[in-house]
Amino acid sequence: MALVHYPVYNKNRAVIASALTTVDLHDLARLSATYGLSGFYVVSPVKDQMKVAEEMIEHWVRGWGATYNRNRSEALSLIRLADDIGAARADVLSRTGDEPLLIGTSAAEGPDRTAFGEMKPYLRGSRPVLLLLGTAWGLSEKTLADCDIILEPVLGRTPYNHLSVRSAAGIILDRLLEGSQATMEGKKWTP
Amino acid sequence: MALVHYPVYNKNRAVIASALTTVDLHDLARLSATYGLSGFYVVSPVKDQMKVAEEMIEHWVRGWGATYNRNRSEALSLIRLADDIGAARADVLSRTGDEPLLIGTSAAEGPDRTAFGEMKPYLRGSRPVLLLLGTAWGLSEKTLADCDIILEPVLGRTPYNHLSVRSAAGIILDRLLEGSQATMEGKKWTP
Repeated sequence: MALVHYPVYNKNRAVIASALTTVDLHDLARLSATYGLSGFYVVSPVKDQMKVAEEMIEHWVRGWGATYNRNRSEALSLIRLADDIGAARADVLSRTGDEPLLIGTSAAEGPDRTAFGEMKPYLRGSRPVLLLLGTAWGLSEKTLADCDIILEPVLGRTPYNHLSVRSAAGIILDRLLEGSQATMEGKKWTP
Repeated sequence: MALVHYPVYNKNRAVIASALTTVDLHDLARLSATYGLSGFYVVSPVKDQMKVAEEMIEHWVRGWGATYNRNRSEALSLIRLADDIGAARADVLSRTGDEPLLIGTSAAEGPDRTAFGEMKPYLRGSRPVLLLLGTAWGLSEKTLADCDIILEPVLGRTPYNHLSVRSAAGIILDRLLEGSQATMEGKKWTP
């Protein structure tokens, strides 16, 4: 999974680099550990913000935080920092020997969306999968167009369609992986 | 749904009142709007913290925030503050004319847990439902014992069992309500 801070839209649909939110890193790392992901990429080109992420991870994985809360250390050790989506893709390639299947997510509906129920063959295939989640007002159209698959939006029971990435990530991973038998089986990964 | 800040456990399994976390209120209010809940109770006996919650809600629902982001206003208007779980129950009773069915949640497994797949009859019944989510290290045993039903924990694909309440709430609502046809139908609610 990758949490993308650039290129994403702001409220006025301009493409921006969004601010790092440390609670997102905690929550999505905990989800990654829960659902057995091999890694969780935090993608941002803003070096100052990546330094904050590095210090936070250092604190929880190797610093005092690791003693205080070992579960947090286990989850946050899955985080890898990447300057852009290409770097995350390249890292998956280097660890698995395969180009990952890029899965985009968006709160917007569109004609080219793939339903959750149709995802099993891709998740069970031998190719590694990289699920992209956008921060702020979502992944840019160009980023979505570069994906192999765009997932249908998470819809609840109302037209309200504004979940936090922390809640949406949980729902998406649960829908994709709950009850699924073979996501990581047959997929290589070099830690 | 109710987010409970007391009585919950801390890391050392002492019963405490946990600190209000504003991002929890935003995320769970957005989930409540997405899944069509009638209301979202924030339960805490700490008056200073409830004042913070009140000011935050005021800002987003009626203040400047309502103009800045109408979606946030829509979601946060579902929040009701309650001193304790009893006050939340009484509020549901006064709005619906029925005592709510209390559903407890816990990350811990136990012999008396009800599976997600067995929940439909309760959700489709005419009785209102109040789903309790604990903050910190979870709802106290006594609180769970007072519930009519205790949901099974959200398990992913690993033994790791430490989700944030923001992610867990999303997964729980999605598992309970996705595809369900009649949750609110037949249930009275006086706004």
